[in-house]
Parts: sequence; C-alpha cells; structure tokens
Amino acid sequence: MRLSKLFTKTLHSAPADEQALNAQLLIRAGYIYKEMAGVYAYLPLGLKVQENIKRIVREEMNAIGGQELIMTNLQRSDLWQITDRWDEAKVDVWFKTKLQNGSELGLAWSHEEPITDMMRNYISSYRDLPINVYQFQTKLRNEVRAKSGIMRGREFVMKDLYSYSLDEKQHQAFYDSVIEAYLRIFERIGIGDKTFLTYASGGAFTKFSHEFQTLTPAGEDVIYLNREKRLAINQEVYNDEVIKHLKLNRADMEQLKASEVGNIFSFGTVKSEQLDLSYTSKSGDKQYVVIGSYGIGITRLIGVITELFADQKGLVWPEAIAPYKVHLIRIGHSDELTKKADKLYKLLTDSKIEVIYDDRDLRVGEMLKDADLLGIPHRVVVSDKGLANNTLEWKKRTDSEAKIINEAELVSILES
Amino acid sequence: MRLSKLFTKTLHSAPADEQALNAQLLIRAGYIYKEMAGVYAYLPLGLKVQENIKRIVREEMNAIGGQELIMTNLQRSDLWQITDRWDEAKVDVWFKTKLQNGSELGLAWSHEEPITDMMRNYISSYRDLPINVYQFQTKLRNEVRAKSGIMRGREFVMKDLYSYSLDEKQHQAFYDSVIEAYLRIFERIGIGDKTFLTYASGGAFTKFSHEFQTLTPAGEDVIYLNREKRLAINQEVYNDEVIKHLKLNRADMEQLKASEVGNIFSFGTVKSEQLDLSYTSKSGDKQYVVIGSYGIGITRLIGVITELFADQKGLVWPEAIAPYKVHLIRIGHSDELTKKADKLYKLLTDSKIEVIYDDRDLRVGEMLKDADLLGIPHRVVVSDKGLANNTLEWKKRTDSEAKIINEAELVSILES
Repeated sequence: MRLSKLFTKTLHSAPADEQALNAQLLIRAGYIYKEMAGVYAYLPLGLKVQENIKRIVREEMNAIGGQELIMTNLQRSDLWQITDRWDEAKVDVWFKTKLQNGSELGLAWSHEEPITDMMRNYISSYRDLPINVYQFQTKLRNEVRAKSGIMRGREFVMKDLYSYSLDEKQHQAFYDSVIEAYLRIFERIGIGDKTFLTYASGGAFTKFSHEFQTLTPAGEDVIYLNREKRLAINQEVYNDEVIKHLKLNRADMEQLKASEVGNIFSFGTVKSEQLDLSYTSKSGDKQYVVIGSYGIGITRLIGVITELFADQKGLVWPEAIAPYKVHLIRIGHSDELTKKADKLYKLLTDSKIEVIYDDRDLRVGEMLKDADLLGIPHRVVVSDKGLANNTLEWKKRTDSEAKIINEAELVSILES
Repeated sequence: MRLSKLFTKTLHSAPADEQALNAQLLIRAGYIYKEMAGVYAYLPLGLKVQENIKRIVREEMNAIGGQELIMTNLQRSDLWQITDRWDEAKVDVWFKTKLQNGSELGLAWSHEEPITDMMRNYISSYRDLPINVYQFQTKLRNEVRAKSGIMRGREFVMKDLYSYSLDEKQHQAFYDSVIEAYLRIFERIGIGDKTFLTYASGGAFTKFSHEFQTLTPAGEDVIYLNREKRLAINQEVYNDEVIKHLKLNRADMEQLKASEVGNIFSFGTVKSEQLDLSYTSKSGDKQYVVIGSYGIGITRLIGVITELFADQKGLVWPEAIAPYKVHLIRIGHSDELTKKADKLYKLLTDSKIEVIYDDRDLRVGEMLKDADLLGIPHRVVVSDKGLANNTLEWKKRTDSEAKIINEAELVSILES
C-alpha cells in the first residue's frame, strides 16, 4: 500500500476526552477512530491487525476441532428469562431494543443462551457429541464507564467458543486442549512470556474458572503470580485455601496488574438443564450435555499489545500481527531514485511481503516520525546517498541504529 | 470436512412459521438457523458461502481503489439529527437503545452520516481526495414485516462503499467504475446473465439512482426490462419521460419480478454541506466534497442465489461460492473401500480442492438425498462396485446422470 493512497493520516493529537494510552496512540496513528466512549471503528491499518489476530486464533481453534459459525446480534428475551439473566438487576450490561410491535429484544453481550438453545436442533443422541463451535462476534455491553480505550469497549470483537460434551471426562479433555491452544495463540501473537494461566472465580457452576492474564500496568485486574511455575491467582479468589489447593506459597507470589485477554469456563450441566439440552445415551437414558465457554477478547488484545510494546515514539507491533511487515521510505524525488524505490516495492510485494510504501513528498523528519508512530517491524530507507553504491538503510522498529545493507541482504532478512 | 464431524445435520422440515423458500431450504440443509423472523445465524456451511461472496466482492472493491474498514454498530444521535434522519417518522427502520445514563443511541441501519463525519479528520485539502472506503457490516433494520427469509432481514450483512470526490467529474468516473465492478461481481458469482442495471428513483439528491436487479419471482420489486440492451427501469420511475430519456420503447419492455442485489447512489454535496465536510481547493477556496454510496446485500445475495438455482431436491450452488467444490460419498464399509475413499479425500484436499466427505454409515438413499439438499457442485461416489476396476462415479449437481470415470479423469475435471 502506498502511503500517498492510504486515506488515514497521522494526527497530532487524540480527542481530548480520550484517557487511555492505547486508544490515544491508535487514533493518532490512524488505526482506529473513536465514535464515542468505548465505541471505536477500525480503519484499514487497525482492521488488518484485527484480521491477523483472527487468522491465528482461527487456525488454533480449527486445530482442536472448532467449527466456525456466526450467531446474531439481535436476541429473543425468552431464553434469557428461562436462565434468569434477562433482568437488568441480574445482568447490568444489557443493551435492549424493541421491535415495531413493542416486544423487547436483547443485543448480544454473550451468546451462551441462544447457541445452547440452537443446539437442541443438532443434539439428540450420544453420537452427536462432542460439538465445539466458535465465532468472531461483535458484542455490545452497556458499561457504565468506558475509560480504558479498546481494552474495555461498549462495542468490541470477541472470539467465543462453546463446547458441548457427553460427560465431565470428555469436557475436561477438551477444556485442557483449549488451555494449550490459548497458550499457543498468545505465544504466536507475541505476548506468550507476559501471559499467565490464572485461577479465578468459578461462579455458581464450578469451583474455578481459568483466565489468561497479561501483565500490564494498564490492566484492570490484580493477580498474584508465581513466576517460576507460571501460575497466577486472581485477587478475587486469592486466599489461603486456594493457595494451598494449587500447592503454592504466599511468599512466592507477586502482586501485579494485568489484563484478562482470555477466559474459560465450565458450566457443567446447569445451563443444559435450564434450557433442556439433552441426549439419549448408549444405554437409552436421557443425559444432559456438559457445556463449556471460552472467550478471547480480540480487540482488547490489540489494546493490551499496544500498551505493552509502545514506546515514546509510537506503536510497536509484533511481526505476526503487524498490518505490514515493511515500512519502505523514499527520501528524495529524482527519477532514478523513484524508479529504484518503486522497483523494490514491487520486488517485495511480488514475494508476498506486505509493504507500506511512503512515496509522499514530505520532509525526512516527518516521514521517519510517521514510521515510528505506525510501528511497522522493519523500516527500509532508500535515498540518493545509497543510490551510487546500491545500498539501503534497514532498521527494526525495536533497534536504535540503522544498518547499511544491500538489496539481497534485505530480502534474506525479510524472508528468514 | 468429514460429514461425520460437521455438527449440523439436514433437517426434515424448517420451522412452521418460515414462509420463504430460500430460508426453508437453507435451514433444512444446515446453512442457517432462524433466531427469529428476519434474524438468522450462519452455520459453518452458510458462513463459508458468505465468506466466498465477500472474497469476490473484496477483490473487486480493492481493484477499483477501495480501502476496507469497519465502522461501529452503536451510533450517536447528533449526526442523524443534523441531517434530519433521527426521527422515526422520517426513517422507519431504526432500532434504538440507551446508555446507562439514559441517552439514546442508534443501531446501524446505514453508515452514511458517521462515516462522512469521520472523514472530517482526514479530508482538508484537495490533495486528500479521492477517498473510497468500504466495509462488510452487520446492519440492523426494524422492518415491520420480515417474510422473505434472508432476502429481507432485520439483521443482515451488507457491503457498503462510500466515495468522497473533488467534484462531479471525479465522482462520475468512480461511479462508473463501480458499475463495472458490480457487473463483474455478479458475473463471477454466477448471476451475471440474470442481473440488470436498473434506473430507479434518485430521491432528493439526484435524478436517478442505479440498482442492480436480479430476476426472480421471489423478488419484492417490479422492473421493466429491455433484454437486448440489458437495461431496466424500476416500476417506481417507469414513465414516458424516463423511457424517452433512456432512448427505450415501451413496446420492448418486459414487466418482471426482481430482487435488488445492489444499489448505487449519488448524494452530490448535500450531505457534505449538512455535515460540513469540505476541502481547500488548489486556488484556496472552500469546496464541499461530492459523495456517493454503493451497497451490495451480501446475505440477500445468498437468498437470491438459493431461489434462482434450487430445484425440487435442494440447493444448487454456483462453483465460485459453493462452500465445498466436491461432495465425496463412500458407499460401503470394507477396510479396502474406506482406505480408498480416505486416500481420495486426502489427495483432493492436498491439491487445495475443498471436499466435504460423507464418511457416515448411513443408507445410500439418505446420503444421496443429503448430497442433493446440500447442493455441492461435484458429487463423487466411491463404492465396492468400482473398487475392482478402479473407477468412481462422478456427477455434477446440475447433471441428471452420473458418469463412470477413473481418478485421473476426476482430478483433471476438478482442476480444469
């Protein structure tokens, strides 16, 4: 993509009411646009990051047998009434709306009820199980406060997976495979070393749920971490009993701020009993399906990654999710230089390397500043200086000094 | 994908309240699920069709310089108040909701206002134009009646593109390129010969808008078509003046039912004046941006294609958008046959041919019936009969008779 064509421009400042560092930077760099507090549009660069994360998550969900679908935003009230979660005193994040005939509809803050009810069409015998389905869905949650940028949106993208199992044993095996898949995902997108399996409250259904917490001062959660064992406990269940249960010692636990990027949950048969999702077992009797629910906050992840890696100069993307791999800058306007830069742009894009090409006629300082703000992993500068001896300047976003190399060296670096 | 693993099953009947043929068939085949009237979830097969259509649309939108983004579902009221479209007496399809503090929000039925307002961040000089952006977005429209299945949803997926141009000339050039791109899209997805450029009402902004109408008795529109010139007029503007303007003759026009799969619209500078979207021209004066809006109903298209091609036995997909290219059926359970079928499944999928593999132990009749209902373009049957002389049965979904061929012939057919 040529920067001269990209419609977004870097902005000098974010809206005055934007308090979160992640949203401030992403707005200034043109990745997102703030529609209102907690509600952000994703512009071309931001959408590419989102799609890159989705691709990795999709691959890992498919690898453990997940089947992708997409449920609806508009939801009927009846199912939520059955499970006693329609009342706003019980669930305080509902957005609701009305059909023309006056009947109330809910807007999706979760899909546990509708997806479980749908499964009644597809589950009747033990032969139909297990079923594991997932979606990338826009969720709407009526948060009272939305001050953490894209880390807590009123509108946000979530990957939610639901597992339907024969029994506790089948459920537990899948649950464990999700833990492994989640760890692979966070590793692949570049936050593996900062993300920890965390024991959290299980609510009414089970003793614990599991969270995946990424360490960041911008996080809204507090966890207690044993770094050596890579195991954490959410503050909400941090007590002697739980510490003992996990064979940990209070002395080894570090108190840290973190953001919950993933969450997995066992419902047992509570929801299937409420919504009457059952199957006929091998021996012919009626059994309730064991349900699990597994989320990853896709847009929250973008916020967390922004907070984790950004520096004074701007964004810094891990290569696996960066919108482009290379930020190519042409400094100078001579025909010869333009031809050389255009040729390099074509060479790289023909090799399926994603390049953003700053072909604008701006001051050098402005172009370098924009490159830092955008945070693309590899910066390549072609200038009249290098034209004579056929060299270019290459610098990783995380390096402090550029290196003079030739084109063959660049290609070998980028393809490695 | 092995059918034994796919969680959806074909159903004997659609919900009793479902009147539309398209939704009845898609529900029975497991492509979609009806949450409520006009609101459908997309299950794995249906989501694949949707993604295939999006891929084609995306390629064509990128080819004419479109940049993809994604706006928000939640919308502020202030912009729509400025353009006098907030009032439900003016726009009768609003779904609205409320923040916890009581202030009203709109749910996206269109994005003209928010996207135009956003552009005020990115457009200030003539150098910033043209800008053409598009999204695939879930729209919510509070239709009083929703009886046409996925051809008129209360929740549906739309591709909407917005163009921002310097002047009428630049606008018209892009507008014409969209017409060409749309014709390519409808051609590529298999409805080119049944889809016609149609003159329709231009509303307050311009003399005409253009629709793309696909002939189908299930359509909600009536058009008058000159087949030879491949030009149609929507009933709403069908009068002597328009006929004369288009140099057509009443005698050559056929009255037909059709469904509007695309729609393109010029706003002139009306909206940019209302929302104050202007730029400084080369000569330094303030000019308003010329705006156009261009939609394609992605999920409606799936409904139209279903209605157009389905037969007594079930769905029939054009190859470009089918969820799978091959429906492989194994009839028999011997180890040798299973090995042969598994090997063929692997051979094809390794060659990047998408195969759905019926590896279930069902009666032959049931498997063939399911294959017809699912509508995958190529059906391949391996059975004990063919095992001895190394043959298999191949039939296109649209053929009436199967042919006996060998594996090499099959591969050459599928790769052609």
